[in-house]
Amino acid sequence: MSKGLVVALSGGVGGAKLALGLSRVLPAEELLVVANTGDDFEHLGLSICPDIDTLTYVLAGLDNPVTGWGRRDETWSFMETIATLGGEDWFRLGDRDLALHVERTRRLGAGQTLSQITADICQRLGVRTRVLPMSDNRVRTRVRGENGWIDFQDYFVRQQCRPVVQELAFAGAADARPQSEVIAALSGGTVRAVVICPSNPFISIEPILAVPGMRAAIEDCNAPVVAVSPIVDGRAVKGPTAKMMRELGLTVSSAAVAERYGELLDGYVVDAADSKGISTRLHVAPTLMTTLEDREALARTVLAFADSLG
Amino acid sequence: MSKGLVVALSGGVGGAKLALGLSRVLPAEELLVVANTGDDFEHLGLSICPDIDTLTYVLAGLDNPVTGWGRRDETWSFMETIATLGGEDWFRLGDRDLALHVERTRRLGAGQTLSQITADICQRLGVRTRVLPMSDNRVRTRVRGENGWIDFQDYFVRQQCRPVVQELAFAGAADARPQSEVIAALSGGTVRAVVICPSNPFISIEPILAVPGMRAAIEDCNAPVVAVSPIVDGRAVKGPTAKMMRELGLTVSSAAVAERYGELLDGYVVDAADSKGISTRLHVAPTLMTTLEDREALARTVLAFADSLG
Repeated sequence: MSKGLVVALSGGVGGAKLALGLSRVLPAEELLVVANTGDDFEHLGLSICPDIDTLTYVLAGLDNPVTGWGRRDETWSFMETIATLGGEDWFRLGDRDLALHVERTRRLGAGQTLSQITADICQRLGVRTRVLPMSDNRVRTRVRGENGWIDFQDYFVRQQCRPVVQELAFAGAADARPQSEVIAALSGGTVRAVVICPSNPFISIEPILAVPGMRAAIEDCNAPVVAVSPIVDGRAVKGPTAKMMRELGLTVSSAAVAERYGELLDGYVVDAADSKGISTRLHVAPTLMTTLEDREALARTVLAFADSLG
Repeated sequence: MSKGLVVALSGGVGGAKLALGLSRVLPAEELLVVANTGDDFEHLGLSICPDIDTLTYVLAGLDNPVTGWGRRDETWSFMETIATLGGEDWFRLGDRDLALHVERTRRLGAGQTLSQITADICQRLGVRTRVLPMSDNRVRTRVRGENGWIDFQDYFVRQQCRPVVQELAFAGAADARPQSEVIAALSGGTVRAVVICPSNPFISIEPILAVPGMRAAIEDCNAPVVAVSPIVDGRAVKGPTAKMMRELGLTVSSAAVAERYGELLDGYVVDAADSKGISTRLHVAPTLMTTLEDREALARTVLAFADSLG
């Protein structure tokens, strides 16, 4: 018998690891992954959705284990060539990965929604888990560094997170509509748990929560909301989370992340080394996901903990 | 001392062979190649210019000697992948070739003209010969087959020239402005010859002549206009020229091509086997270009013949 739907909020790499674990311990119809689209951007005339694509590739088993992003068995002829044509080559697009961006851009131009396109691509790549963008409207994360506001991928990739972050904004969020299937699922009375994946809270999870109606739907759904801390032993597993926390005046700790999520959380899964000073109900478990077994084990742990809170 | 400017009108593969020959026997500043853009089309959201690109790749020494189109040392990861995503894969785009289409599409979207983009790409690829589109405005060759009007690349690539051609049209030509540098060059009083390359007259040369002002500028430039027949020994060297001539009610002969060009021609270069029944002033020479030496020899032949008519 179904225990209800698990709604997972996720950014890219770290979140996708837990999403993969969840997808392997839950029937496909009991998992809905809501992807951050604040990282999306337009580059070389193409619509690129890094977090959706990482989730898609990871869930399809097509992710690149060496780079951590993009596709496996990738070739780089396009990138090599565009540099010779004077095109921008700071954002690395593999030849296979590029097919997804070209096809998505074409379909968006033909009037399909990002949700429709994502669902179709997932189906074609054999992903049975539903992956949905937080919104079909454009939301773009912006970063205020020492030289003013810049686009997120400019900060993240081109400038390799060097600017000191003073402020973040989610342009377009105030006018965005939340993805309707996500809202319907959260309002349907059959949600088992909302899982906040171990993604960067500021640039992966907060854009999702910034879409009007999304936070309220999560709060109102009567299911336990459980986050997994992206901090292990006082360090971010990957990416600029720790640097960003310091720059925003926070301590780099699981406690600071819990405080940031605040009242939204019913429970919090942290690594043994990070359990001090947290008022949220805690479950202490290994949260570093190195192997596939780690991903599945953490998924089971999160679900069992959520069920205990229900 | 300069003998003046040679203006060559060219389509794709066959025309590019002679354009290459001309580029090797003339100083760069004495050659201007006017490319057909009637074959251009929008595909997968990209602006693709087959004749400009063939000319560019041939002149840069980057053309693919195996396929006859596209780039050498090409990889096909993009094409393999887009098929798995439900994208259209009937028009083959190599990974390196794709970089040109993506970069051109981006620049067109940013407001650059096709002329500017083509000039810059040529420069970056080391092509010193000026290659210019016949117009920066959109002209699209359409083909009326037994099932009505279709786009040229649908006819040419997707349907592999199977439809019986009843009529051709150049949509947008009537409202197109001829490329201004081409018109300025033709009007400048220093044209040595206008060379009509051995391209398909119906789909490569006539779209150029259909741009308002182009034919008049050629007629008025006081330089000899010399065409090289695309027919050798009663057969087209490549492509649908012969099939198209039959379907349009013409005999497959150099004479029929000369008749089609009519008063425009001052001289005509044909292969020995094709010299009968032509009223235009003739020069008989080998026109099949297999080697690089063939291309250079024919270029010299055409120029000497044109000079003799001047």
